[in-house]
Amino acid sequence: MAGYELVIKGGKVATAADTFMADIGIRGGKIAALGDDLAGDRVIDARGKLVLPGGIDSHVHVAQRSGMGVDTADDFASGSTSAACGGTTTIISFAAQQRGQSLRQVVKDYHAKAEGQALIDYAFHLIISDPTEQVMGQELPGLIRDGYTSFKIYTTYDALKLTDRQVLDVLSLARREGAMVMVHAENHDIIAWLSDKLVQAGRMGPPSHGIAHAAIAEREATGRVISMGELLDVPLLIVHVSGCEAIEEIRKAKARGLKIYGETCPQYLFLSAEDLEKEGFDGAMCMCSPPPREAANQESVWTGLTTGVFDVFSSDHAPYRFEGPGGKVAGMKAGGFKKVPNGVPGIEIRVPMLFSEGVLKGRIDLNQFVALTSTNHAKLYGLHPRKGTIAVGADADIAIWDPAIERTITHSMLHDAMDYTPYEGRKVTGWPMTVLSRGEVVVDQGEPVAKIGRGQFLSCDKPDAARPRGHLPFTPEIAKSILF
Amino acid sequence: MAGYELVIKGGKVATAADTFMADIGIRGGKIAALGDDLAGDRVIDARGKLVLPGGIDSHVHVAQRSGMGVDTADDFASGSTSAACGGTTTIISFAAQQRGQSLRQVVKDYHAKAEGQALIDYAFHLIISDPTEQVMGQELPGLIRDGYTSFKIYTTYDALKLTDRQVLDVLSLARREGAMVMVHAENHDIIAWLSDKLVQAGRMGPPSHGIAHAAIAEREATGRVISMGELLDVPLLIVHVSGCEAIEEIRKAKARGLKIYGETCPQYLFLSAEDLEKEGFDGAMCMCSPPPREAANQESVWTGLTTGVFDVFSSDHAPYRFEGPGGKVAGMKAGGFKKVPNGVPGIEIRVPMLFSEGVLKGRIDLNQFVALTSTNHAKLYGLHPRKGTIAVGADADIAIWDPAIERTITHSMLHDAMDYTPYEGRKVTGWPMTVLSRGEVVVDQGEPVAKIGRGQFLSCDKPDAARPRGHLPFTPEIAKSILF
Amino acid sequence: MAGYELVIKGGKVATAADTFMADIGIRGGKIAALGDDLAGDRVIDARGKLVLPGGIDSHVHVAQRSGMGVDTADDFASGSTSAACGGTTTIISFAAQQRGQSLRQVVKDYHAKAEGQALIDYAFHLIISDPTEQVMGQELPGLIRDGYTSFKIYTTYDALKLTDRQVLDVLSLARREGAMVMVHAENHDIIAWLSDKLVQAGRMGPPSHGIAHAAIAEREATGRVISMGELLDVPLLIVHVSGCEAIEEIRKAKARGLKIYGETCPQYLFLSAEDLEKEGFDGAMCMCSPPPREAANQESVWTGLTTGVFDVFSSDHAPYRFEGPGGKVAGMKAGGFKKVPNGVPGIEIRVPMLFSEGVLKGRIDLNQFVALTSTNHAKLYGLHPRKGTIAVGADADIAIWDPAIERTITHSMLHDAMDYTPYEGRKVTGWPMTVLSRGEVVVDQGEPVAKIGRGQFLSCDKPDAARPRGHLPFTPEIAKSILF
Amino acid sequence: MAGYELVIKGGKVATAADTFMADIGIRGGKIAALGDDLAGDRVIDARGKLVLPGGIDSHVHVAQRSGMGVDTADDFASGSTSAACGGTTTIISFAAQQRGQSLRQVVKDYHAKAEGQALIDYAFHLIISDPTEQVMGQELPGLIRDGYTSFKIYTTYDALKLTDRQVLDVLSLARREGAMVMVHAENHDIIAWLSDKLVQAGRMGPPSHGIAHAAIAEREATGRVISMGELLDVPLLIVHVSGCEAIEEIRKAKARGLKIYGETCPQYLFLSAEDLEKEGFDGAMCMCSPPPREAANQESVWTGLTTGVFDVFSSDHAPYRFEGPGGKVAGMKAGGFKKVPNGVPGIEIRVPMLFSEGVLKGRIDLNQFVALTSTNHAKLYGLHPRKGTIAVGADADIAIWDPAIERTITHSMLHDAMDYTPYEGRKVTGWPMTVLSRGEVVVDQGEPVAKIGRGQFLSCDKPDAARPRGHLPFTPEIAKSILF
Repeated sequence: MAGYELVIKGGKVATAADTFMADIGIRGGKIAALGDDLAGDRVIDARGKLVLPGGIDSHVHVAQRSGMGVDTADDFASGSTSAACGGTTTIISFAAQQRGQSLRQVVKDYHAKAEGQALIDYAFHLIISDPTEQVMGQELPGLIRDGYTSFKIYTTYDALKLTDRQVLDVLSLARREGAMVMVHAENHDIIAWLSDKLVQAGRMGPPSHGIAHAAIAEREATGRVISMGELLDVPLLIVHVSGCEAIEEIRKAKARGLKIYGETCPQYLFLSAEDLEKEGFDGAMCMCSPPPREAANQESVWTGLTTGVFDVFSSDHAPYRFEGPGGKVAGMKAGGFKKVPNGVPGIEIRVPMLFSEGVLKGRIDLNQFVALTSTNHAKLYGLHPRKGTIAVGADADIAIWDPAIERTITHSMLHDAMDYTPYEGRKVTGWPMTVLSRGEVVVDQGEPVAKIGRGQFLSCDKPDAARPRGHLPFTPEIAKSILF
Repeated sequence: MAGYELVIKGGKVATAADTFMADIGIRGGKIAALGDDLAGDRVIDARGKLVLPGGIDSHVHVAQRSGMGVDTADDFASGSTSAACGGTTTIISFAAQQRGQSLRQVVKDYHAKAEGQALIDYAFHLIISDPTEQVMGQELPGLIRDGYTSFKIYTTYDALKLTDRQVLDVLSLARREGAMVMVHAENHDIIAWLSDKLVQAGRMGPPSHGIAHAAIAEREATGRVISMGELLDVPLLIVHVSGCEAIEEIRKAKARGLKIYGETCPQYLFLSAEDLEKEGFDGAMCMCSPPPREAANQESVWTGLTTGVFDVFSSDHAPYRFEGPGGKVAGMKAGGFKKVPNGVPGIEIRVPMLFSEGVLKGRIDLNQFVALTSTNHAKLYGLHPRKGTIAVGADADIAIWDPAIERTITHSMLHDAMDYTPYEGRKVTGWPMTVLSRGEVVVDQGEPVAKIGRGQFLSCDKPDAARPRGHLPFTPEIAKSILF
Repeated sequence: MAGYELVIKGGKVATAADTFMADIGIRGGKIAALGDDLAGDRVIDARGKLVLPGGIDSHVHVAQRSGMGVDTADDFASGSTSAACGGTTTIISFAAQQRGQSLRQVVKDYHAKAEGQALIDYAFHLIISDPTEQVMGQELPGLIRDGYTSFKIYTTYDALKLTDRQVLDVLSLARREGAMVMVHAENHDIIAWLSDKLVQAGRMGPPSHGIAHAAIAEREATGRVISMGELLDVPLLIVHVSGCEAIEEIRKAKARGLKIYGETCPQYLFLSAEDLEKEGFDGAMCMCSPPPREAANQESVWTGLTTGVFDVFSSDHAPYRFEGPGGKVAGMKAGGFKKVPNGVPGIEIRVPMLFSEGVLKGRIDLNQFVALTSTNHAKLYGLHPRKGTIAVGADADIAIWDPAIERTITHSMLHDAMDYTPYEGRKVTGWPMTVLSRGEVVVDQGEPVAKIGRGQFLSCDKPDAARPRGHLPFTPEIAKSILF
Repeated sequence: MAGYELVIKGGKVATAADTFMADIGIRGGKIAALGDDLAGDRVIDARGKLVLPGGIDSHVHVAQRSGMGVDTADDFASGSTSAACGGTTTIISFAAQQRGQSLRQVVKDYHAKAEGQALIDYAFHLIISDPTEQVMGQELPGLIRDGYTSFKIYTTYDALKLTDRQVLDVLSLARREGAMVMVHAENHDIIAWLSDKLVQAGRMGPPSHGIAHAAIAEREATGRVISMGELLDVPLLIVHVSGCEAIEEIRKAKARGLKIYGETCPQYLFLSAEDLEKEGFDGAMCMCSPPPREAANQESVWTGLTTGVFDVFSSDHAPYRFEGPGGKVAGMKAGGFKKVPNGVPGIEIRVPMLFSEGVLKGRIDLNQFVALTSTNHAKLYGLHPRKGTIAVGADADIAIWDPAIERTITHSMLHDAMDYTPYEGRKVTGWPMTVLSRGEVVVDQGEPVAKIGRGQFLSCDKPDAARPRGHLPFTPEIAKSILF
């Protein structure tokens, strides 16, 4: 029992299960002890503070070029800094294959973008848009074994969408290799058909985006991929779920015991279809896919969070600027809603807004909050228990919250590279004023203080959550023929 | 008040609503009167008999060439004769477009096949496999106005399936023109993917057909087309529904007020997956799409019939022979289950088997039976009140049932051109021993007695059942932009 | 084939299944024929008119003394006249047992009240409030055999409610004897508990009635009696269902195949909780149990009607005057909402309001309308096919509707003995201007023209609808021990 | 940072959220530290072992006299010893009011029975059978403030059942005072009615117990109390849930956001209705209320555990002997199934059987297991974080499991005072061979080693879980009138 390099003293610690008073002893970047009276070389006084696992944002687009060829405003430097200032200590961004590309090369390219740029640790999900024989037969199995154990597929976007048959191929591979499949579930044809009608009618404004991405289109695709997951007994994670109809599909799937996971995002709690109707181009600030639904739907999203339909709360940070080349205004001018890059920023406000509106308003408790913003992400993507909790042996990724501080969100206070926030003017209570990554203080008094580039790549384990549940709608003999 | 040419005397008459003792007076092929004491030039003694509306079989494939290029065993002559001998007085067969064909020409061709061949009256549904601009812009609207007011679309079969986008186009047109859309709902990619796996595993037998056409594939496509119908507020009829999962989708849609109609068929009540497992090639006798499900599922189909999930009970008579060129055995030998023409015969046993197992066993009452086998077909496809009931002014299409006669179904007793029946040896009680079409006795003592060719083509009205319900998920202003 | 005493010529006839042009020939008070060209001694010209089965109002309180000792304003004379003027030709009123009374005597007493007083035909439901050994062992079985084949039980009201155990006794007897059980389903204790709290808080006004009769109390009791019906496999009819929660209970019960029937009433389509909040005592005009729910709930009731949750649409005519001794105002003055006699009048407007808002606005079709207002009542209570349809052999109970006439409902135009209508000022289109009972014109040009006392008592058959479905949650051997 | 009195070294620790390798330092009976390298005065080597929070069994009947006047076989000495030997370190037993008794006196009496008798710590739930003014107005509020913050009510048993009105009173008080309400939910009248019929039929054997306690009776009462909880926005815990129908009620309640909690027990996973049918009197060994259901129902219970319908897994240990006076055989002889004391033992096998069948067979993970057997009990009953977890500051109540040991359950190996176990002969893998209570080893190598009487009474906090969610079906103004 040696001493500790750093001790966080006197705080109230919470995990996904427990809340208790404890000091935290850190050694070698890891949590070496929790105790009622620890001593260390350095001490951070956390009396009156909440000491929580650093957030994990498992749905982040940084340093990524969109299907429309627009680059995100944030690279790993600004994105990870903004994340850290919002209490997040791990981000999982996307290594996005474009059709024709080798997946290995894609991963290499994204590593090059991230290398030396991150303030906090990061991992990669793969985006599979072109499941060629080469990709499916060699690259993907190899990458999974190398620590890229999750990938995202799309049922929409011309440049990304897979056919149902390709989805089955991908699910079947995920089953065999133990990877987690994330799905962007919206019915492509419905969206395209409605969009064309709206364009033909001259309705080019942001509200048309919300109309085209109908809640029924989301429900449909959610139900469809769940059916495919059920057929092959493959766990699935439906990302950025917005509408009560899709929520209901996930709820029913879970109720009958399927391993279907759900993710939602701040924009579905705090924005609404009305935001798309703002004057001039301002509605474009809130355009993302799926879009925010009508205000009454927000209650369904909250209920989804409180009742376990949603396992994770991510930002889907997709930072496309409002002004400037490739920006939303330029898109609107060039061709209306169909030319506007889709996405809203949220990497920094994600955890604080949920804390303020969720925990302090009594909708969720502190342990649920930790689970939704951190622990469950680690479990679903093979980072637990290294990340996502405060436990002996875990990385000392810790956010120390002042639960009483009041802040008004403005774009100027945020650390991303964007030129707006859709949450301008919202008041929140509570903020993670001090943040540690692997034992190093990276944010102090709310401002970044560590060196860009210190963040490390995280290789992910095959998550338990991705294991089949063992109920196939086939006899064992047939299953062997169909699967592997 | 003139006398009647023919009077059916002393029978117990049933409609979809009522059961009562009445004589029926017929004049000019129509029902001129129902009365408690009618006199006529000729009299049929129906004492002790049930006098029911002739059946309508709204799902019949005759004189049709399959996607595989195999012709149905039955042409209009044998098909309509077999129908009549089973108490059916109207069939609606398909005028099936193959890709590249003009729909007008298709209709003309099918008329040529039917002309002078039918024993009873007939109408046509269109099958739309190629919704080109020509078809959608001109032919289809014109044909609807000309009395072809229903059409069937497919979500599966390479030669027939429409994309979701095409489905939306078709639904939108149906909405504008007032036509009824029938859907064969199975997820194509799931079936194809499973089929390929089974073939790769060398599992070429009939059971693989049932496995590939998984119940989940049916549920998925059912849910998907319902979503599209809900989006555009277009009534839909899901045909030949087999599995409890799809039944549940329809039930839920109806429960929330959608105009979604359901059809099921004898093969889902009286056959099961076990029938596909018969020795040698015999399993192929029961191959149809969707396939019969496990035996326990039959109870769900019955409950669907008794609780109003199903509006119509049709045969989906798809008569492909067992032996001979193009037959099921030849298909099996040529390439296993994927080369076997899909379909089972049932045009003659449809009504008697439902009577025996449904009415006499107390599962449905006589009025439900009339609705399911006759009246609802007429209503859903624009033939009511000319067809489908016993009422003044209706065509005198009447089946006189001996409710006590016991028969054992054998192929040899049936009047189709097939070489087997999957119901060989089943015992039934009750049979329509005398059948009238437009006042003419076409079946007497169970055998056909009228001249082939007397059957007439029926032009269909736009059915009320196809009218939107008036609930769109858009504001009226937006709806006007999206629809017409 | 003799001539007819009376012919209704040229009208459009509708039954629960069909709509067609026909003349109706009447002889001896019965429908002797329907024909395309009938001649008779007298002729009523019905060209341009709808000729429908006379309505059956199977939920009517006339000549009844309430639990509070207040007499209904209407006796059989005024009640049956008002009914007839609204197109109804049969009423089923209640012979209501008070505790301690012999059921035989009760029936005798109610017959005395009805004898010579009715304009149209009538039957009786029994109300069982005291299932003594004498009642259960002798009287009730005898009465059922004598044509009193339905009875109503209550889960609330101090003077009426049965314990669950008594409900089971009654259900078990109904099962054995083939009677139909109607249930007033509200949780008594919830209502009483809330009422007391509201009284303690000094909230004595009509809105407290609505609050105390919470929708949850209705859902609870509905679910409970359905459970008991399911346990013993006994069909049940839940009367005057108001809230979407109870509707959902019935829907689910039907979906799993149970023979649970539902009834709703005009007050749940056309009144709302806001009506209870009217100034002064006026809110008391709309007090009934269950109470009208919030306005948004009306859509659920409509959906219940269109989707088959509801089998019958009755008035629950419970005519307690507003002014005068025993009236609602007197009740309010005496003790607030708990002392106000519960009930609203509706016997005359029931059918016209549903026609105007239902048929003409496209929510239901004409056949559904006939089923909901007439045919299904006859079937559920053992009066079919004598009543409830236009068919050969049926009583010539016929309403001839002018579908285009516009009327504004006012109390002064109605024929009941009340001093208000809650629907004052509502505009409707369509009215049954001529009404026949057993072939006799009882209403002409909207006014009663026949002699009071001509109405006859109807003995009811044991309805098919009351037969168990044959699914007990016991083995047959156990069932025999538990049942009979 | 002093040294620790005791260190558990090298084990794999699990909480309800996390699993990690850590040493545990214990000082003063509490967990003083978790660390990667702790030293202490004494060391327990836990390498290769699982180190879990001691189980909490929150549903235990010891030293209790039944409504039939039969004493449990176990007193606090044997009951707590048996619990400890099965890895449980806290039991919550009942202080059961009989009608007419002062609740204060009841509590005093039960304390007298427990004082100096327990091996491990214990708390009390109250059983309220007589909510008099004295009880409700004074005793109960005072007791809640004194640390008796949960109570159980019954909807069945003559000696215990409350009317719905009393339930509302109790819920309303619980709401105001912040107590947790547990409900035994079965419909009394259904059970009594069926029992009487079975007795009349001479069916006196144990199977009649299962038939009388029909699954529908459980569903009904579960739905009813949930309705009452929803009406007043009061959290409820439905105890010992057995049937899939009741499970579905809880699932639906949770899905719409209600704070309804569920408990199930080993007998519903590991026994079935068939066990009641054993020869002679042996079926009586498995009689408890609710009874074990048919074998297929076990899968529903498992799904309830895996999908979060159930929050806690308790034993409902109700140890009535098979032989001897007051035993099950004596009951059978005296009067058949109605005279048999209800209940099965399970306090010792509860945790091991769930570990073996749940964790090792992959149905639940280790963290779910900890939550279900320990943490959630502490949270629901106001003992967290003192009990129910391994965290700094918590009592050192720890079970050290050998996950590989194989044992066959026999009565002779158990430590209760019973004369049988219904699980005789079942094989399990894994057992908590060493158990600590407040840092003291109470079980070593599977056998009790500490002094009877060391167990302490636990005063419970008002649980967060018992706080209303804030959704009442009334306006705030009305709510104030109805509640407090």
